[in-house]
Amino acid sequence: MTYTAPATDIAFALTHLAGLSKFEGHPEFESYDAELIEPILDEAGKLARDVLAPLNQVGDKAGAQLTPAGVKSAPGFADAYAAFRDGGWMGLSAPEEWGGQGLPKVLGLAVMEMFHGANMAFALCPMLSFGAIEALLAHGTDEQKAMYLPKLVSAEWTGTMNLTEPQAGSDVGALKTKALPNGDGSYAISGQKIYITWGDHDVAENIIHLVLARLPDAPEGSRGVSLFIVPKRIVNADGSLGDENGVKCIGLEEKVGIHASPTCVMEYDGARGWLIGEENKGLACMFTMMNSARLNVGLEGVGVGEAAWQTAFEYAQERKQGKAPGVSGAAPILHHADVRRMLTTMRAKVMAARAICYATGVAADLAETGQTAEEREEARLREELLTPIAKAWSTDMGVEVASLGVQVHGGMGFMNETLAAQLYRDARIAPIYEGTNGIQAIDLVGRKLSMADGAAMTAMLTEIDQTAREARETNDPNLVQVADRLSEANGALKDATAWMTRMMAEDRDVALAGATAYLALAGDVIGGHFLTKGAVGARAEGGQIRGRMTALAGFFAETSLAAAPGAVASITQGGQAMLAESEALFGIG
Amino acid sequence: MTYTAPATDIAFALTHLAGLSKFEGHPEFESYDAELIEPILDEAGKLARDVLAPLNQVGDKAGAQLTPAGVKSAPGFADAYAAFRDGGWMGLSAPEEWGGQGLPKVLGLAVMEMFHGANMAFALCPMLSFGAIEALLAHGTDEQKAMYLPKLVSAEWTGTMNLTEPQAGSDVGALKTKALPNGDGSYAISGQKIYITWGDHDVAENIIHLVLARLPDAPEGSRGVSLFIVPKRIVNADGSLGDENGVKCIGLEEKVGIHASPTCVMEYDGARGWLIGEENKGLACMFTMMNSARLNVGLEGVGVGEAAWQTAFEYAQERKQGKAPGVSGAAPILHHADVRRMLTTMRAKVMAARAICYATGVAADLAETGQTAEEREEARLREELLTPIAKAWSTDMGVEVASLGVQVHGGMGFMNETLAAQLYRDARIAPIYEGTNGIQAIDLVGRKLSMADGAAMTAMLTEIDQTAREARETNDPNLVQVADRLSEANGALKDATAWMTRMMAEDRDVALAGATAYLALAGDVIGGHFLTKGAVGARAEGGQIRGRMTALAGFFAETSLAAAPGAVASITQGGQAMLAESEALFGIG
Repeated sequence: MTYTAPATDIAFALTHLAGLSKFEGHPEFESYDAELIEPILDEAGKLARDVLAPLNQVGDKAGAQLTPAGVKSAPGFADAYAAFRDGGWMGLSAPEEWGGQGLPKVLGLAVMEMFHGANMAFALCPMLSFGAIEALLAHGTDEQKAMYLPKLVSAEWTGTMNLTEPQAGSDVGALKTKALPNGDGSYAISGQKIYITWGDHDVAENIIHLVLARLPDAPEGSRGVSLFIVPKRIVNADGSLGDENGVKCIGLEEKVGIHASPTCVMEYDGARGWLIGEENKGLACMFTMMNSARLNVGLEGVGVGEAAWQTAFEYAQERKQGKAPGVSGAAPILHHADVRRMLTTMRAKVMAARAICYATGVAADLAETGQTAEEREEARLREELLTPIAKAWSTDMGVEVASLGVQVHGGMGFMNETLAAQLYRDARIAPIYEGTNGIQAIDLVGRKLSMADGAAMTAMLTEIDQTAREARETNDPNLVQVADRLSEANGALKDATAWMTRMMAEDRDVALAGATAYLALAGDVIGGHFLTKGAVGARAEGGQIRGRMTALAGFFAETSLAAAPGAVASITQGGQAMLAESEALFGIG
Repeated sequence: MTYTAPATDIAFALTHLAGLSKFEGHPEFESYDAELIEPILDEAGKLARDVLAPLNQVGDKAGAQLTPAGVKSAPGFADAYAAFRDGGWMGLSAPEEWGGQGLPKVLGLAVMEMFHGANMAFALCPMLSFGAIEALLAHGTDEQKAMYLPKLVSAEWTGTMNLTEPQAGSDVGALKTKALPNGDGSYAISGQKIYITWGDHDVAENIIHLVLARLPDAPEGSRGVSLFIVPKRIVNADGSLGDENGVKCIGLEEKVGIHASPTCVMEYDGARGWLIGEENKGLACMFTMMNSARLNVGLEGVGVGEAAWQTAFEYAQERKQGKAPGVSGAAPILHHADVRRMLTTMRAKVMAARAICYATGVAADLAETGQTAEEREEARLREELLTPIAKAWSTDMGVEVASLGVQVHGGMGFMNETLAAQLYRDARIAPIYEGTNGIQAIDLVGRKLSMADGAAMTAMLTEIDQTAREARETNDPNLVQVADRLSEANGALKDATAWMTRMMAEDRDVALAGATAYLALAGDVIGGHFLTKGAVGARAEGGQIRGRMTALAGFFAETSLAAAPGAVASITQGGQAMLAESEALFGIG
């Protein structure tokens, strides 16, 4: 099985669904031109297919190893990283000032989808660097930027995020790592961090750790957390590399999947670090990285889902079992309706999640570069609203679709030699890290729905109605039916949104008990909206993409959208049925 | 984490939901007495908790190993098997004539649920023996029974099922293994079988393989398949063990989970075998094993789901993150509504699946032992109808619930050291083997709905309406609400059943494209029916079980049952949207 980057689907999602065309002639993106999309996706696709994908199962089998000299990456990964670095991929959407190409970030995300699909364990490394670049751009001093950005943008160095400690996971504010002033502007960082992705490795000569720690006398909880830059090797004033810093990997986790991605226990023993951003505002700085990382993790779901679909589709064409009308002898299982249904479910959900993620990416770009304050604010609201959905809905989808991929493979899917099996294991982390999907749901209903008096969701709901209208106006009976499903589903989302907004004020526990179900509904409806938009947009394209988008929108409408009205009770009533009997269920009041 | 057998829930499911009381004073089960349930479940629970559960992660880590002398089981497994054997558990529901205790089979299933929950990789070994016993009882000659049954029932020997070959999985009829007459009543069996669970091991002195093979000049396909008894060591006429037979394990699969269960590639090289049942009727014989195995696999979903719930519940009580009202300092995550919701989802679905499986087991018992022909026929129809649902719905549930268990654990859930991670990996096989869940769905809509002019499903639908009436008649507002949801959901199931029955005649592909969704709906509604019945029945019990059953029924009603009406379109329309565009989606017409 060779992963083939789905350039056509990605280009379609970017231009027809996510609104990439808004950057055409945009003063902030002088280097952008719609004609760039194809060659960029083609080139990235080659790296994904020819370099990263062939190492995916190799890395799963070998994993990364902890040696006395540090973490040794899986066979071939250092060379693959060099190819990634030399291709200039890290800088695609970084500012030209720091050596990047200054293209919209969403193009960088599109490329990352391919890398995640080809080899998620590998792609996590640049993903973390991307977060470090974002944090430095937003919060670094000029000196810090000059010292670290060029090497991060060129991918000569990589970046990490160091948040979690054994007692501080979702509750980041509980962290204990200490930062003591050295008196020379630097700090001595001491403590242990866990679950640090690519925390150590041998694929680049330096690693820039961004580390959350507490200053002496810092307030308790999340208000006493500051962010520090802690390089693996100290960078001299002239940019050359100096001493090893007091940080090392003291353990690697044995995980269910992403074996080639070293998940490190990091020990900071008086390591020298430099404050980035303000004292005690570390969490805000970290959120800069986190928002971008969350969207990127959503794309892991898309990438892994796409790979799962591809390998299942390939297997379904090759594997012969049973008879089918019109086929002599044993028929490829693709001919069995149940198998086709699994494949269609996979493909429809992957495309829906892809559109949600890229729409979030376009909003993130416009939030920074929109030409009016109003445009920027609208885009910011959209980005904020969609980020938790892009993260949680796409990663839950990734697990579901990877599991369907296993099922298509039958017994082979349970064998570790099969890519499908690896994808099922790899996919499972994405709903957990960068804020569990439960945290995303709480973020959505607790913070995002109420922003600007609910303006973000109101704008989304209005846009969905508009999409339904456009589908109806085609007078194509298939699309009219899709439009009806979308309208009903949007009605359900409106009801659920009104209830949730009210209940967050009235009874927070009851509201939060429905948060995950609400996010799932919102993702279904917004995903259906994009697929509907796609089916309308593809009418002008003709050919297979028209048929495909019509089928995916139709299938999704009759399955996920048709289920939306029946999902409202799960949000509004499900939690109460449970909370009322907490004593009997959980032994607590 | 220690697995604790859920004796209370199992006893409740057996007596209040599945109808075990029907065996009280039953002439076929003279040894049965309701007062036996508790001591049996207690004793089995001890073995599960004290012997099997402590080896679960040990076995996952070590796996079984292929050595020149054959397969070596994981550390401790041979001793555990001896404890299982000496406890007499294999014979619990086997006929007294062959050394068993002659109790209803459903009690044996209850015990197996515990063993699956404690250590699924281990429990697969007796599960396969159980199938071999069933096949011998149904199809063996008196001589064959006398030769093999006592040792299988005593668990001195184990059994296997040998169906699959590389080219013959779901399509069993494509198998090529040959059986040539030796002229002395025995046959020389030659061929390769794959995915043979516990195909070789060192925990018992002999293994009785039941092997599907083709006689010379047998018709092609499934009508030319015969079943053979092929012992690992030849059994002499006096019952002593003779020569090694020409069968060996030549490879072990590396799997996603159930590492301690050796999944063998078996080579038969002129091995001596004896025909069981009639020539070319092997598939029918195999179905005797398969039906019982399917139900047992359903219980794997229940057992693993129960273990996942238990370990998640324990973790949620221990792990502290964030604040909660009424808790000083960091609160156990159990206090967070979203976590409670995950736990409630897990527990409700496990209980629903448990009830479905035990109801199937009671039906299987009554199909053999009912006191009138009518009772037996009714029970047979019920068993046949529920078997694919028990298998598929429960195992899909097992995967979903195991995945939720991972999610409750956060990052820890992705670490292989965590039981939750193992359960996520172990659970994934159950929807695949003993007939994929897609095959179950096709069996349900293609064969089971049409039996006796639809009598089986009609009886089920009527019984569900009756349950809704009983819930309504309690006048308990909670249960009236549950009753309303159940009635609506049952209405949806009726509509879907009518459509499916019609469509199987009109357009088989369109019908089959909705089969999996139909099975899911049927499982939801039947599961909800049992939970409702449970909530009504628990009113007389009072205490925590009353509150618990009310909460589980209420939660399930507002989530799964409330979603049922919205799931009908997925069955009736989803397939058509996809099949109409097969060319664009799959490149085939």
